[in-house]
Amino acid sequence: MKFLFEILKLYSVSGDESKLSEFILHYINQRKNFWKVLPVIFSGEDFHDCILLKFGEPRTAVFAHIDTIGFMSRYNNQLICVGGPEIIDGTTLLGKDSFGEIYCKLKGDENDISHDFPRGLDPGTRLSFAQNIRLDEKFIQAAYLDNRLGVYAAIKLCETITDGWVVFSTYEENGGGSMPFLLKFIQDTSPIKQALIADITWITEGVQFHKGVVISIRDKFIPRKKFIDRVISLAIDSGIPFQLEVEGYGGSDGREVQFSPYAIDWCFIGAAEENVHTPDEKVSLADLEAMLNIYPYLMERL
Amino acid sequence: MKFLFEILKLYSVSGDESKLSEFILHYINQRKNFWKVLPVIFSGEDFHDCILLKFGEPRTAVFAHIDTIGFMSRYNNQLICVGGPEIIDGTTLLGKDSFGEIYCKLKGDENDISHDFPRGLDPGTRLSFAQNIRLDEKFIQAAYLDNRLGVYAAIKLCETITDGWVVFSTYEENGGGSMPFLLKFIQDTSPIKQALIADITWITEGVQFHKGVVISIRDKFIPRKKFIDRVISLAIDSGIPFQLEVEGYGGSDGREVQFSPYAIDWCFIGAAEENVHTPDEKVSLADLEAMLNIYPYLMERL
Amino acid sequence: MKFLFEILKLYSVSGDESKLSEFILHYINQRKNFWKVLPVIFSGEDFHDCILLKFGEPRTAVFAHIDTIGFMSRYNNQLICVGGPEIIDGTTLLGKDSFGEIYCKLKGDENDISHDFPRGLDPGTRLSFAQNIRLDEKFIQAAYLDNRLGVYAAIKLCETITDGWVVFSTYEENGGGSMPFLLKFIQDTSPIKQALIADITWITEGVQFHKGVVISIRDKFIPRKKFIDRVISLAIDSGIPFQLEVEGYGGSDGREVQFSPYAIDWCFIGAAEENVHTPDEKVSLADLEAMLNIYPYLMERL
Repeated sequence: MKFLFEILKLYSVSGDESKLSEFILHYINQRKNFWKVLPVIFSGEDFHDCILLKFGEPRTAVFAHIDTIGFMSRYNNQLICVGGPEIIDGTTLLGKDSFGEIYCKLKGDENDISHDFPRGLDPGTRLSFAQNIRLDEKFIQAAYLDNRLGVYAAIKLCETITDGWVVFSTYEENGGGSMPFLLKFIQDTSPIKQALIADITWITEGVQFHKGVVISIRDKFIPRKKFIDRVISLAIDSGIPFQLEVEGYGGSDGREVQFSPYAIDWCFIGAAEENVHTPDEKVSLADLEAMLNIYPYLMERL
Repeated sequence: MKFLFEILKLYSVSGDESKLSEFILHYINQRKNFWKVLPVIFSGEDFHDCILLKFGEPRTAVFAHIDTIGFMSRYNNQLICVGGPEIIDGTTLLGKDSFGEIYCKLKGDENDISHDFPRGLDPGTRLSFAQNIRLDEKFIQAAYLDNRLGVYAAIKLCETITDGWVVFSTYEENGGGSMPFLLKFIQDTSPIKQALIADITWITEGVQFHKGVVISIRDKFIPRKKFIDRVISLAIDSGIPFQLEVEGYGGSDGREVQFSPYAIDWCFIGAAEENVHTPDEKVSLADLEAMLNIYPYLMERL
Repeated sequence: MKFLFEILKLYSVSGDESKLSEFILHYINQRKNFWKVLPVIFSGEDFHDCILLKFGEPRTAVFAHIDTIGFMSRYNNQLICVGGPEIIDGTTLLGKDSFGEIYCKLKGDENDISHDFPRGLDPGTRLSFAQNIRLDEKFIQAAYLDNRLGVYAAIKLCETITDGWVVFSTYEENGGGSMPFLLKFIQDTSPIKQALIADITWITEGVQFHKGVVISIRDKFIPRKKFIDRVISLAIDSGIPFQLEVEGYGGSDGREVQFSPYAIDWCFIGAAEENVHTPDEKVSLADLEAMLNIYPYLMERL
């Protein structure tokens, strides 16, 4: 879990993912020779801060977004949201602008958010939740498990995958925008018919801790039943613990697969968390393990 | 109207359109040799559950969505909406899951929808309104006239069309998602500059029964005036009864034509109904006849 | 400013931009031989009412939308909005339908808008704010500065630009829809990696008159930090007065660059106005001058 702990400590609020992207790319280059199959790597300015890895002959792609929610300084001491963070008075926020490091507390509520830093911030400065990783026998708790755990699952998958795309996307928390060009590049390079979204979902009355990785039948958008049925059937065969989610709200990179100009089936698969979009996101280690296990299983068989 | 009655009895809630798609494809294969022009047929997994028919040298495409609104089981006895059905306590719903056939009543209101089936349903099970077709001298009334009538108009058009695409799309009621790949395929195969949306709209203070098929000047989105003017001008020449609609809300597959990466003009043309998205959708037979008549007329001249 | 005054007097409510498009095209053809570089011109039905000018070897495109907000007649004496105009009882509106010229007053409020013209209007007739241009030493005030000033800045840029696309887009005020095909055409013809949005933004507590052209760090959507930092750095070097905007709401043609299937960075750059979407939009002449000056500077260096 060293890789997971390291990426949990890196900030990458939507639109400013370059540092995390560099870290992941560096890690890939260090490790790739130990992987079962050596991937072709696509990254750099032509891909903004996204990274695509092509292993063998892909039929399916896995997408994990590397950005997080956060805040941005506006005028005076005002803050506005990047994506949908929970607004909790007193939350510690960190960042950096042209004058140096920033350490402050969030003040106010959803209608009026500010910070208490003694000086003004450069307009547009991004702030992240201060990180505090807590690990016990049953749970991991930290800021930004959404979607550092998805990134972790995607990197672990690289060790054994023989055929498939593993893709690190950006902007997801603030409405998206990298998926369209990533999908176009994939379809122009080595096309797929299936996509899995490695991301974190919510504990609800029907999705509970320690019951396994979540396979989402729907959120606001609805993947094609034929494909979901096939994924569920394979999950049953795998013996890996999983639970089914049916939600009327929420979205993911899957939304952009749905609206892409390609007939690509998609499914969201990931662990569920409590305290969504707070510094205290909490995930069951058993559910995380199921998430880590199901990706290699499905990628081999889909 | 045998075809219409048959498709009214088949369920195809968004995301699960495969059975209706198979039925339409079977019908097409039975009838195509009697049509004026033999179409090239595109269907199968590469097109999910959509069907495209290419007649002659297309200038225009007609799109009819084959999915419907409905419900999906969540956890316990909860239901959530697929698309925007009217929530009417006591409505009869039908479906099927791994345990067998389901026949139940809808309970509750928009904030809390449930069913009264004595056993739990598989999560993600789709439920449709029970069908009850009523026909008299002036009206047809049934569930899912939206958009079985559009599908019917599209199939009738196939009998006489010489040049054009006739396309059966999916997912429309829950936000769309097949139009982008259908449009890309069309533009890559035999491109068009014009699209007509064969779908059902609403009776309002300005759109009334027996006044003819509706040509929509706008809904939430606004097609280009130059094209709408041309459609209206042809409609006047045709002598077919029509009425104009101007709405600030609502959408159709036209929305995805508008936002596609192709300069394709579009127009929504279809009969209007009362009791939208209920089991009691009601359409004037005179308006339906005008809808059936205007498509061949326009497709020949646009 | 003769060109600006002329385009301020032409109406082009979203979806009906053909007259303004023709005027701009005519102007381009009259002037192009006096420009530093002769552009390749793309216009006509294949581009709906958009115009693209390709100068030299483009790295960046400038987009200016030529449509405006306005109103559309519905049934009886009802009006509905095109885009988001301010609803001010008593506002003078102008238009034309099959019966002739229309001059009327807006009645009512946001929930119920009507006109007082003594006869009914053809359904779907577009109405614009009556134009009243006011110019003094510090300000220009008129209807539709948004986005006639952007169009003006784009045309002025044509005089000196050596490399780049200058593009006049449509539909922007009512949700967009021309940008996807414009971007596809650009990327298929002479691709770019950068886009600047020449449009008008709002005076707020952080954006004030006479403080320079606005470079927007974000609106509802968030361009990539790396690119914005580069634009700001060039702006500093230029010595041209500018101010930074950080907003949580609003959108522009930049939204469609963000969601395009191309990895194109984008930034909104334009003067700010008071009385947004009213007949009394007001812009500082100093800010306009900064807007006119920054485009040639950036296009040469980006």
